Amino acid sequence: MAEAAAEIDQALEVLIPPPDGPEAKLFEAMRYATIGGGKRLRGFMVLEGARQFGVARDAALRTAAAIEMLHAYSLVHDDLPCMDDDELRRGKPTVHKAFDEATAVLAGDALQANAFYVLSEADTHADPGVRAELCRGLARAAGPRGMCGGQMLDMLAEEAGEPLEEAEIGRLQLLKTGKLIEFAAEAGAILGKAPPQLRHAFAAYGRDVGAAFQIADDLLDATASAEETGKRTGKDAAAGKATLVGLLGIPRAQAQAERLAAQAAGHLDALGERADLLRALARYAIARRS
Amino acid sequence: MAEAAAEIDQALEVLIPPPDGPEAKLFEAMRYATIGGGKRLRGFMVLEGARQFGVARDAALRTAAAIEMLHAYSLVHDDLPCMDDDELRRGKPTVHKAFDEATAVLAGDALQANAFYVLSEADTHADPGVRAELCRGLARAAGPRGMCGGQMLDMLAEEAGEPLEEAEIGRLQLLKTGKLIEFAAEAGAILGKAPPQLRHAFAAYGRDVGAAFQIADDLLDATASAEETGKRTGKDAAAGKATLVGLLGIPRAQAQAERLAAQAAGHLDALGERADLLRALARYAIARRS
Repeated sequence: MAEAAAEIDQALEVLIPPPDGPEAKLFEAMRYATIGGGKRLRGFMVLEGARQFGVARDAALRTAAAIEMLHAYSLVHDDLPCMDDDELRRGKPTVHKAFDEATAVLAGDALQANAFYVLSEADTHADPGVRAELCRGLARAAGPRGMCGGQMLDMLAEEAGEPLEEAEIGRLQLLKTGKLIEFAAEAGAILGKAPPQLRHAFAAYGRDVGAAFQIADDLLDATASAEETGKRTGKDAAAGKATLVGLLGIPRAQAQAERLAAQAAGHLDALGERADLLRALARYAIARRS
Repeated sequence: MAEAAAEIDQALEVLIPPPDGPEAKLFEAMRYATIGGGKRLRGFMVLEGARQFGVARDAALRTAAAIEMLHAYSLVHDDLPCMDDDELRRGKPTVHKAFDEATAVLAGDALQANAFYVLSEADTHADPGVRAELCRGLARAAGPRGMCGGQMLDMLAEEAGEPLEEAEIGRLQLLKTGKLIEFAAEAGAILGKAPPQLRHAFAAYGRDVGAAFQIADDLLDATASAEETGKRTGKDAAAGKATLVGLLGIPRAQAQAERLAAQAAGHLDALGERADLLRALARYAIARRS
């Protein structure tokens, strides 16, 4: 994963060039938000998925970088004072703290646009059908029936102050983080023009890893320190936020994350040993300490 | 234009369906920001451009609606307290006033994603190459070398408090509003798979109309009332904002807008009478009072 993260960082360096001209501040903020941070879980999934189908490394890296841009934009906006109001992200000040609020809004907006720009460019794939499909998949994962819808549910739940039921929490998290992870897992199969049943297998893998990852995130929030995770912890309980950990308790939530990780790995049975790294990723998602 | 605006509104009604489910508030805010307001200058350009090439009405309407979604998102974010801090837009309270700040950020984000979703769907055009090209064009117009870059320049100029030179103002406005209007003018030709020289003619037309439109906007800000325009006026001078009107004075700015509108019309000479409505639009852009 560290190797993949370094390669993705190199791709981001090229795709968000160092600033020149009077609008330098915008490019600086975009680079600050994306380069040199994060686990690159989503990007790693793209690269490993694409490897199963012999996709050219450059195409896979551009796609991975685009999805990481989209993810980074969502973090920048989620951290805004009017949203979760966070000051620490990936071990450094959030974008609106390091720059200012207007720049954070704009950098997020520009990262979203740039993600689509990268996916739609001919350099990413010679087949325009693949490029259109990538744009469609990213747009669906990012829009009101994906990430934005999930963040809305999250804000509303916090406002209402009433505990959500297990199914509601599941839906919230599927939208907020699951859809993009699902797309990251599927993107390699799209790039490789895989048959529908394999595409669906990768999507199902992504969905389960995403759900397991989210529970693990909530477990870390409940049990780890800010030094370990690089972001403020204990904030879910403090905010009365609806999580499966809060609802089920730590041991049952842990068991469910393990069940989901095993189920994720099972979706890739047809691929044999080639998919071992993706199976390992499902285990890592729940074993990590940051 | 009123007919086209009504058709575009109908398309938006379908593409952003009335809300159901717990995330209703997000869809409501997206609809509030897009439906039933605005001149639909960009959408009208798409429809008229597409008509030149015999493009199916539904394809043109979807593309027009997508570009209007993108435009609406930019207004929602520009009006935020951390940006231009505006309370009135299209004659009604801005989204963060009618809802709240978090919802305004999210509705804008979701509208951007939705614009790309609409352009990338097979319903918009059977040819995936056209869909990929539309996504690429929109992403470039919206990103850091387009709208977001222009808004950054605008904020920085206001912060610096130093007057910009004419060329700097021109570049700021080309990025902030010109690039999207240019793409709106070009989109019909993309949908119609027009030869490059016609595509470029439409883009040049859009660039000039966009520049003329911006000067007209600044003239309205200097001379019209909020009742006429449906938004706060006199704010450029109050904010010491860099505009060509401030730099050249009203008569010379007016003359330049007229020159640009005539130049815009000239780009469409090859199309003959068919393009009369687009030529009339160039005149309207500078003659309007709202």
